[in-house]
Amino acid sequence: MTVRRRPGRRPGSADTRGEILAAARNVFAEKGFDKATVRGIAREAKVDPALVHHYFDTKERMFVEAMQLPVDPDLVLPTVLDGPREEVGERLARLILRLLAEPEARQPVLALIRSAMTNEQAVTMVREFMTHALLYRIADGLGVSHLRMELTFAQLFGVIMGRHVLRLEPLASADEEELVALLAPTIQRYLTP
Amino acid sequence: MTVRRRPGRRPGSADTRGEILAAARNVFAEKGFDKATVRGIAREAKVDPALVHHYFDTKERMFVEAMQLPVDPDLVLPTVLDGPREEVGERLARLILRLLAEPEARQPVLALIRSAMTNEQAVTMVREFMTHALLYRIADGLGVSHLRMELTFAQLFGVIMGRHVLRLEPLASADEEELVALLAPTIQRYLTP
Repeated sequence: MTVRRRPGRRPGSADTRGEILAAARNVFAEKGFDKATVRGIAREAKVDPALVHHYFDTKERMFVEAMQLPVDPDLVLPTVLDGPREEVGERLARLILRLLAEPEARQPVLALIRSAMTNEQAVTMVREFMTHALLYRIADGLGVSHLRMELTFAQLFGVIMGRHVLRLEPLASADEEELVALLAPTIQRYLTP
Repeated sequence: MTVRRRPGRRPGSADTRGEILAAARNVFAEKGFDKATVRGIAREAKVDPALVHHYFDTKERMFVEAMQLPVDPDLVLPTVLDGPREEVGERLARLILRLLAEPEARQPVLALIRSAMTNEQAVTMVREFMTHALLYRIADGLGVSHLRMELTFAQLFGVIMGRHVLRLEPLASADEEELVALLAPTIQRYLTP
C-alpha cells in the first residue's frame, strides 16, 4: 500500500517533507514511539512544529510514513471496526494477508522486525507503536481484552513470518482465500468478548 | 530443558562429543538440515561415522543438541501424539509455553530465529528442520494437513515472539494457564481434520 497524499494539501518541497521523515526516524529510534513528540521531531529537522503538522496530521501517520509501513492505522481501524461484527475475523485476516502480499510492502515491515530482534531501542519503538496505535485501539473499539487482540496479532504475525520469512511449505504457496477461511474462525473467536 | 544423556551409553570424551557438535553446526549451516549427513559431519569432525552414531542416535538429535534447542522432537512428538485426541490443543500449547518459559532455554531458539531473519542459509536450515523433524511428522501422526500444522506453528511462534521478544503487554505477563485456555481451542480446531 503506497502512502497517499491527503487531498487539499499543498504538496510543498519534497526535501522538507523528506527531512522531517528522516528526523522522525531518528527521534522514534532514540525515544520510542510514546515519548517522541512533534516538537522534538521539528527540533531535530530544524523546522517549525507547525510545518510538521502541515505535512502530517498525527504522530501515527508520521511513524507509518517514516518506516514506510503498509499497515496504516487510518486504514486498518475503519476496515476492522466498520462492517458486520460477525465477519471481523475474515476482514482482518484478508486485510493483513493482502497488505503484506507485495514484496515492496513487506520489505519495510521485515526490516523493522529484524531491528526489533537485535536492538532494544527498536523493540520499544515497535512495541509502543503496535500496541498504542493499533492493537489497543482495535481491541477497545471492539470491546475485547487487549490479551485477545494480542493473540490475534500473534496468529497473523506468525503466518506472515512462516509464509514470507521461513517460507514453510505449503503455507508459503497457499492460496490467500484458503488461508482466510482457516484463519477467520480463530480471529473471530478471539475478537468475540 | 537440558540435554539428557541416554542411559547405558559410555559417556566418552567430552572433547570428542563437543567436536562432533561443532562440526555438525558447520555442516548444518552450510548444507541445511536435509542435505547434511552423518558421514559429512564425521568427515568435518575428522572422526569415524560410527563414533558419531555412538554419540547421537539420529540427525534430528544432533541438530537439537548442536543448536541447544529446548524443542526436541523425541519429546514433543510423543507428548503431542499420545494422550486424548480431544486435548491435543491444550497439550501442545502448554508444552511450548513451558519449554520456552526459561530464558536459558529460549536464548538458543531466539538466536536461531535471528540468524534466519538475516541469513538465507540459516533460513533453509531452520525451515528444513522445523518441517521435516517436527511439523510434518506431527501432522502425519495426527492425520491433518501440513497447512493446518503450520498455522498451529504460526500461532505459537507469534505468541513466543509477542511474549518474549516484542514483550507486548498484557501478553508478556499473562499467566501460562490463561494463555493455554485461550490458545487450546484454536490449536484443537486446526488439528481436527
